Amino acid sequence: MTRLEQQMDFIVEIDQLKEITRQTYISSGERKETDAEHAWHFAIMAVLLAEYANEPVDLLKVIKMALIHDLVEIDAGDTYLYDEEGAKTKAERENKAAERLFHLLPDDQGKEFDSIWREFEERKTPEARFAASLDRLQPILLNDATDGKAWEEHGITEEQVRKQNQHVKEGSVRIWEYLQKIFDKNIEKGKIQRSSS
Amino acid sequence: MTRLEQQMDFIVEIDQLKEITRQTYISSGERKETDAEHAWHFAIMAVLLAEYANEPVDLLKVIKMALIHDLVEIDAGDTYLYDEEGAKTKAERENKAAERLFHLLPDDQGKEFDSIWREFEERKTPEARFAASLDRLQPILLNDATDGKAWEEHGITEEQVRKQNQHVKEGSVRIWEYLQKIFDKNIEKGKIQRSSS
Ligand SMILES: [Ca+2]
Repeated sequence: MTRLEQQMDFIVEIDQLKEITRQTYISSGERKETDAEHAWHFAIMAVLLAEYANEPVDLLKVIKMALIHDLVEIDAGDTYLYDEEGAKTKAERENKAAERLFHLLPDDQGKEFDSIWREFEERKTPEARFAASLDRLQPILLNDATDGKAWEEHGITEEQVRKQNQHVKEGSVRIWEYLQKIFDKNIEKGKIQRSSS
Repeated sequence: MTRLEQQMDFIVEIDQLKEITRQTYISSGERKETDAEHAWHFAIMAVLLAEYANEPVDLLKVIKMALIHDLVEIDAGDTYLYDEEGAKTKAERENKAAERLFHLLPDDQGKEFDSIWREFEERKTPEARFAASLDRLQPILLNDATDGKAWEEHGITEEQVRKQNQHVKEGSVRIWEYLQKIFDKNIEKGKIQRSSS
């Protein structure tokens, strides 16, 4: 197999990202979005919101993270943010998927994809921290636009949204502050359950 | 409205790209893909195939083209490549859409998006020529993977595929050559109708 054929086969293989359904509804509320749609939305958000990163970021790197970050879900499936059982096996499932998928590429590109994915997961660089903020902001904007549909379906609580999204502020304080307003509004409306305190 | 609110509203507005359905089937053949899924696929193809551009390209620019190029279809709808009637009104419909959509953004970003979209449409820069090649390659790979499903449904002919995709070679001779093999195979199999000559 030539290098080009290997790349083309990989491109067809990852088409399966369009068959992984997330818990988030698209803005019309008519159906849930796919991983591929989420990745596109996340990537274009990087272009539009890069100015709000806490630290200067390499935009191309952030976009690559957006495009690549969910590929492992082709094998591992989508693990809902608030699924505590799924969270326990997530790393193992996703590592196995990375092993298989990125080895389909020519060596240099397989290593690049693997390294970008791991950098994103580890959140230790400005790009990874900012990308992680956008990855959280994207479904929250859609949940807000659909009047909290996914939050209500899953009975999500104030405690859960604050805890699971707190690292957003490490990537962007401005986005974090914006999220607080969305959370407050949806708690007020009963779309996110108020925690007894 | 603050700058940030304007950007967030735009991000929710363009979510509608997930509701624009294309003629191309996803690789499983189970349904047609959406514009947002196509844009993600196109963008990641840019990362993987940039080495085959005829001229050196600014990868970030090519990716921005991929992410933005179909936004006008939110208002204008998708015009199938082989739809001659639709082609007559396409420019007008898309110009009007660009006018409305990009004006939702803060001025500087609206201008950037408009200029990137027009650059892509005009195919006069190395980035635009290469992006145009990928925009054509993407559905062809999926048509091939689904055994010519969309080609058969529309009764597409050899003459149509060769004519409508000939500019691919201006962006990438290597990709153009790869496409010829796909066309030949699918003409042989009767998935693309052989032109009488
Ligand atoms: Ca199009």
